[in-house]
Amino acid sequence: MAQEYKVAVLGATGNVGRLLLQILEDRKFPASSIKALASKRSVGSTVKTDSGKEYTVELACPEAFDDVDIVFASAGGSVSAELAPEITKRGALLIDNTSKFRMDPDVPLVVPEVNAHAIKNHKGIIANPNCSTAPLVVVLKPLDEKFKIKRVVVSTYQSISGAGKAAMEELAQTSIKAVNGENFTNEAVNQKIAFNLIPQIDVFEDNAYTKEEMKLINETKKMMERPDMAVTCTAVRVPVMVSHSESVNIEFEKAVSPDQVRELLAAAPAIMVQDDPSSNSYPMPLDVTGKDPVYVGRIRNDESQANTINMWIVSDNLRIGAALNAVKIGEEAIKMGAVAVKA
Amino acid sequence: MAQEYKVAVLGATGNVGRLLLQILEDRKFPASSIKALASKRSVGSTVKTDSGKEYTVELACPEAFDDVDIVFASAGGSVSAELAPEITKRGALLIDNTSKFRMDPDVPLVVPEVNAHAIKNHKGIIANPNCSTAPLVVVLKPLDEKFKIKRVVVSTYQSISGAGKAAMEELAQTSIKAVNGENFTNEAVNQKIAFNLIPQIDVFEDNAYTKEEMKLINETKKMMERPDMAVTCTAVRVPVMVSHSESVNIEFEKAVSPDQVRELLAAAPAIMVQDDPSSNSYPMPLDVTGKDPVYVGRIRNDESQANTINMWIVSDNLRIGAALNAVKIGEEAIKMGAVAVKA
Repeated sequence: MAQEYKVAVLGATGNVGRLLLQILEDRKFPASSIKALASKRSVGSTVKTDSGKEYTVELACPEAFDDVDIVFASAGGSVSAELAPEITKRGALLIDNTSKFRMDPDVPLVVPEVNAHAIKNHKGIIANPNCSTAPLVVVLKPLDEKFKIKRVVVSTYQSISGAGKAAMEELAQTSIKAVNGENFTNEAVNQKIAFNLIPQIDVFEDNAYTKEEMKLINETKKMMERPDMAVTCTAVRVPVMVSHSESVNIEFEKAVSPDQVRELLAAAPAIMVQDDPSSNSYPMPLDVTGKDPVYVGRIRNDESQANTINMWIVSDNLRIGAALNAVKIGEEAIKMGAVAVKA
Repeated sequence: MAQEYKVAVLGATGNVGRLLLQILEDRKFPASSIKALASKRSVGSTVKTDSGKEYTVELACPEAFDDVDIVFASAGGSVSAELAPEITKRGALLIDNTSKFRMDPDVPLVVPEVNAHAIKNHKGIIANPNCSTAPLVVVLKPLDEKFKIKRVVVSTYQSISGAGKAAMEELAQTSIKAVNGENFTNEAVNQKIAFNLIPQIDVFEDNAYTKEEMKLINETKKMMERPDMAVTCTAVRVPVMVSHSESVNIEFEKAVSPDQVRELLAAAPAIMVQDDPSSNSYPMPLDVTGKDPVYVGRIRNDESQANTINMWIVSDNLRIGAALNAVKIGEEAIKMGAVAVKA
C-alpha cells in the first residue's frame, strides 16, 4: 500500500486555503488525514469542497502540528513566521505560500516544472513563489534553456483575488455602486479598484519599486538560477476577480522566431499555447480561471530589437501561483522521499 | 475684433463628439457658429453641454460644409474617407480624429506640444493621433530632446470608452450581471470585458500585432520625427470606463536619473507629475478622468539595464488623445494663420 501522509492546511478559510483543500482532493493527494487550521475567529466554522466534504476549522496553535507530516500554509507572513519553528521542530515539512522565507538562502523556492531538484535540499521549509512569478518562470525556463534569456520586461495585470476574499467581495459591491452613480470607498485595498487601476501592489521599497515588483524580479532570478538575468517589472492591480495576466517582452542571446517559441512552449509542461490571431484567440482571465495550465498567447517578434519576443501570459493566480503549485511541491517532495512520516 | 470661425463637429453624438462641443465651449474657441453633424439616424436629436447649451444634430451631407471653416471629425474612418474630399474642396480645414489619414505623408499628424510646426504644411487635413499615442509622445518629446531615446517598450491598459458609448453602457450592465452570477455576452466589443481583459484592440495585422499596436508604434515615430526610434507595444483593453494607462520602459542614449526625468517632465507643457511613493501617490484612471494634463508617476530606474527608466502614464483618452488635442490643433492652426475664413 502506498504511504499516506498526515496533512494540515494553515489558513484554511482564505482564498488559497479553500482551494488547497479542493486541489488536495482533486489530485487524490496521498493523505491519511487533512486538518483545516486557522486563527481563533474562524475556529468551528466549516469549509466545504465541491464533492461536499466538510472540514471543521481547528485552532492553528503549535500543538496542532504534533501529529502532522506536511503543512500547506497560506495564512500571511507573520503567522508563518510565528509557527514555522513550531512546525519544523515537530518534524513536519512546511510548504509556505507567504513571501516570508522565499529569499532565505536556506529555503528552496520552487516551481516543480522549473527547479524541482531544489526540493531535496530543504531544511524543513519549502517556499512557494509569488503568484505572478510562478507562471512567468514556467514560461521562461524552457525558453532560457534553448535560447538563453538576456533581459525580461514585465507589466502585470493582477486580479483582486490576490488581495483576498474580502477584496473580491468589495470589488463586486463597489462595482454596482459605481454603475449606480453612488460614492464608494475601499477598505480591503488601499485605493478604489472598481473600474480603476492601482499601480501599487504591496508596500513601496526604497528604490521606488513595490515589494510585489521586487518579489517578481528576485524570485525569478532565484528559481531560474540565473542571478545575472536582467528583469524589470511594473505591477498593476486591475478590476478582475481571478487570474493574473502579464505583458512580457523577452530579449534572448540567440536568434529566435515566434514559431520556435510556440513549438517549444506547446511541448513544455504545464503550459497551454492559445495563440491564433486569425480567430481572435488568445488567453483572457475569465476563460483561464479554474484551469491548471499557464496560458500563453500573442507571441510575436518585437520588431524594435533583435532576438526579442513579445507575449501575453494568463494564469489562475490562486492555482498556479499558490494552491496548485504548493500541492505539486508536496507531491514532488514525497516522490523524492523528502517528507518524514510520523508513526 | 478677433477673427471668428464657422465650426462643424462631425460625429457629434459620440463620446468624442459630445466632448468636442464641451471643450470648444470651455476653451472659448473663437467660433462664430458651431454645427453638430451626424448620420441620418441621429438627425434632430440634441446634444447638451454642461452650461445647458443645446445643439440640434444636422445631417452630415456634403452641403453641410458649404459655410464651414473648420471641421472637427470623429465619426469613424469610413465617414471621414467619404466626406474628406467634400470638406477640403469646400475650403474647410478638416481636423480628423480617425486613423484614416494619419500615416499619409501629405497629412500632418499633430500633438501641438510635440510638433505644432507640422500644422503649417497641411493640405486641408490635419490628423489627430491615436488616444494611446498622444499622451505617450507628450511625455517622450522632452525626454528625447534632452537624453535621446533609443527604445520604448509600452504595455497599455485602455479604457472601454475608446470603443464608444455603447461599449461603456455594456460594461456597466454586464458588470452588474457578472456580480449577480448571470450569464452575459457583449456586442459592442468582441469579447466579454466585465471583470476581464482583452489583449486585442482593433483587428490583427499580418505580423500578429493588432492595428492599435501598430498605430502606436508608427504614429509615435512620425510625430517624434524619429523613424529610427525603436518602439514596441502590447495593447490591452481593461474594464475601466475612461482614461488610458500605459506601463512604459524607456532606454536612453545618455545617462539619466529619475530625478532628472521628474524635473524635466514637471516643467514640460501639458504634463502633471504625480509621483510620491511615500504617500502612495501615483496616477489612476478614476482620478485623471476629466482632467486635461497627461499624468506621470512611478518614475524609477530600471535596474536591469543602463540608462533605462520605468514609468506609468495615465490620461483621459477622450480628451488628450481625442477632443482636447483636436481643439488645440484648431487653436494652433488659427494662431499660425493656417485656417481660411469664408465670407
